[in-house]
Amino acid sequence: MDFKEIANKAKIASRITGTLDTETKNNVLLAIANEFEENAKKILDANKTDLENAKELVKSGEITESTYKRLKLDENKLRDMIQGVKDLMELPDPTNRVILRRELDNGIILEKITCPIGVLGIIFEARPDVISQVSALAIKSGNAVIMKGGKEAVNTNKIIFSLIKVAVSKIDEFPTDALQQVFTRDDVAEMLKCDGLIDLIIPRGGNKLVQFIKSNTKIPVLGHADGICHIFVDKYADYEKALRVIIDSKTQYPSACNAVETVLIHKEFPYSNELKSKLTDAGIKIEEAPTDWHHEYSDTIMSLKYVSDIDEAINHINTFGSGHTDAIITENKANADKFMQAVDSAGVYHNISTRFADGFRYGFGAEVGISTNKTHARGPVGLDGLTIYKYTLKGNGDIVRDYAEGKRSFNHKDLL
Amino acid sequence: MDFKEIANKAKIASRITGTLDTETKNNVLLAIANEFEENAKKILDANKTDLENAKELVKSGEITESTYKRLKLDENKLRDMIQGVKDLMELPDPTNRVILRRELDNGIILEKITCPIGVLGIIFEARPDVISQVSALAIKSGNAVIMKGGKEAVNTNKIIFSLIKVAVSKIDEFPTDALQQVFTRDDVAEMLKCDGLIDLIIPRGGNKLVQFIKSNTKIPVLGHADGICHIFVDKYADYEKALRVIIDSKTQYPSACNAVETVLIHKEFPYSNELKSKLTDAGIKIEEAPTDWHHEYSDTIMSLKYVSDIDEAINHINTFGSGHTDAIITENKANADKFMQAVDSAGVYHNISTRFADGFRYGFGAEVGISTNKTHARGPVGLDGLTIYKYTLKGNGDIVRDYAEGKRSFNHKDLL
Repeated sequence: MDFKEIANKAKIASRITGTLDTETKNNVLLAIANEFEENAKKILDANKTDLENAKELVKSGEITESTYKRLKLDENKLRDMIQGVKDLMELPDPTNRVILRRELDNGIILEKITCPIGVLGIIFEARPDVISQVSALAIKSGNAVIMKGGKEAVNTNKIIFSLIKVAVSKIDEFPTDALQQVFTRDDVAEMLKCDGLIDLIIPRGGNKLVQFIKSNTKIPVLGHADGICHIFVDKYADYEKALRVIIDSKTQYPSACNAVETVLIHKEFPYSNELKSKLTDAGIKIEEAPTDWHHEYSDTIMSLKYVSDIDEAINHINTFGSGHTDAIITENKANADKFMQAVDSAGVYHNISTRFADGFRYGFGAEVGISTNKTHARGPVGLDGLTIYKYTLKGNGDIVRDYAEGKRSFNHKDLL
Repeated sequence: MDFKEIANKAKIASRITGTLDTETKNNVLLAIANEFEENAKKILDANKTDLENAKELVKSGEITESTYKRLKLDENKLRDMIQGVKDLMELPDPTNRVILRRELDNGIILEKITCPIGVLGIIFEARPDVISQVSALAIKSGNAVIMKGGKEAVNTNKIIFSLIKVAVSKIDEFPTDALQQVFTRDDVAEMLKCDGLIDLIIPRGGNKLVQFIKSNTKIPVLGHADGICHIFVDKYADYEKALRVIIDSKTQYPSACNAVETVLIHKEFPYSNELKSKLTDAGIKIEEAPTDWHHEYSDTIMSLKYVSDIDEAINHINTFGSGHTDAIITENKANADKFMQAVDSAGVYHNISTRFADGFRYGFGAEVGISTNKTHARGPVGLDGLTIYKYTLKGNGDIVRDYAEGKRSFNHKDLL
């Protein structure tokens, strides 16, 4: 089957998924969770095969050591993956919510109602739980989805996808074509041409992948190319909080996009030497003269710069950051407020680790990724980010000519 | 000054406009309205010059007769233009609204707060009131904007823009660099390359312009390429309503994007012959065998098709429509509901003219355009469509490690 045919099937199916009620969608999710539980061993076995094959890919340099680590699906991760599907059952349905109800004039009622976007295209690497998360999010939000995983996870992805397909086929109302999986680079190239069929592309991968996709499609793209997160240690910072938050932001998971890359220290912060020495003790390598302030280490290394004041810190972040997540450590409320308003990032934090930037931690149940876009959805993207809205207008034979000729006039009365 | 420099100035200014309070922004709007009122004659004179020059362009075929008509700014239109600016003062500020407040755990508070997008790039043709509307919307929503108008309106656009600049310079807090005007095709080409500086491009023009822009930029694009609107006359339609609504939708302003292009009639609708004859009497030319069902006449011509049932009507619209605005005429509520849920368009209407699809009529004060996108903003785009949000997270030195190690757990309690 060629890609256009797949996309077309997904489009047609999306018109059905968009009309399913909440209970049906939750039944689909439950069926998937059950199918995973009953076939846990099959999933773990497939993952072992992938891990075995990936050893060669690491040796040949085709994938990195950290990609290899992300590939691994153990019993704990599998349990989390299944729980993630179940958690989405508890969350409110993001569609069919009336977010505006307005009388334009007597008998003319405008409503703005949330609805699914349509067909999503998701391109991701390594992490085999993505296919479960993304399928579940798509189902709950009423979208169809076409997924392309990394070849290093092909066996795990195939078994997970086939179990999902078995599960959804048990719910009569659900159109199985709404979930599609593709495998090759050619499929990605075809996907990018499918404007009109695919409504949103979400790449989860490195900078190069994201830039390539943005440059080669008319379809809107949601995601982030870089995660250059900052922590600004203000003159008024609490030393213990600064130390704890920086260590967590840098070392708890150094290759995450929300790990800190650059720490800015107010030059009048009294404990900067102690801070640096403790950070070094914690295994962090400090770069005080990096060649590029826009650099993502993805390792326990960080850039450090002294700044003269909060304005210099804000400017540095707005100039060299990636608009992902940036934090201030301070006990001065005015400075915290200023920082959080002026820093132009998806997440602006006060006295807390940048590692909190995550859909699960925000309570979204799951995320399709983190967006640094300035349109549609920003930050961790969960169910709400997979919806749009339509306007419904109900009248009684009303015409615009009456208003143009001054016979009638609008009253614009909000009813909600 | 080269374009990148202009875009950079706008970006820097946008960081200031994003922090202005509502009163300051309203003062800027008032200053603009006053400046227009005091210099009405200058504006009308400049427009006369454009109209004079445009006669040659019509003769040479460079612009169409309908573009020429749109170019005209008479005293009534000027009054509306000024009133449009004042109306925006009355509307609520779309920024700084807290749309989510959630306790993630004791002492950790997440907020989702609306904010401006940043820098908008607007490309438009003919209508000289666009520059006033767009500037006013940008100011109220806290965005910076770079505008490129059509050369046929160059004199009108220049005088309107210069009056706006004079007005905004009277309000000290407002960074005048936030409003920029450019004039050439080269500027547009440069604009498309400015990802990172420009956050959203809104083309207001024909299909070719919109497609060209979408194909040549990584920046998100908001708008519509076509307006292929439909009216489905159901078997259960009220004859009088059908007639009135179709005539209005087709003739009240035939070149508008929300004018109807195709009427679908249920083959069991009992009054179809009378309907056709009355539509012809109203000056509408009916095409029953068009070569292309995806065709925008922009004239008092419409395609007509008989359909066997509502499903065929819905399928036709979802296949050949442009997702703009589509209406059903019926007295059957179940059919109306089905149509409005299943038709995948920005506006789905029941017993009312498609010409209502408009920001003013919806009560948005003004619009930057109508979007058929499935992401960010759909339908008429007013102030809300020019905002995004950021997440703020406040803690007390909290770290993710405590959650990863099971020492703490999230409670996710909504406070709003």
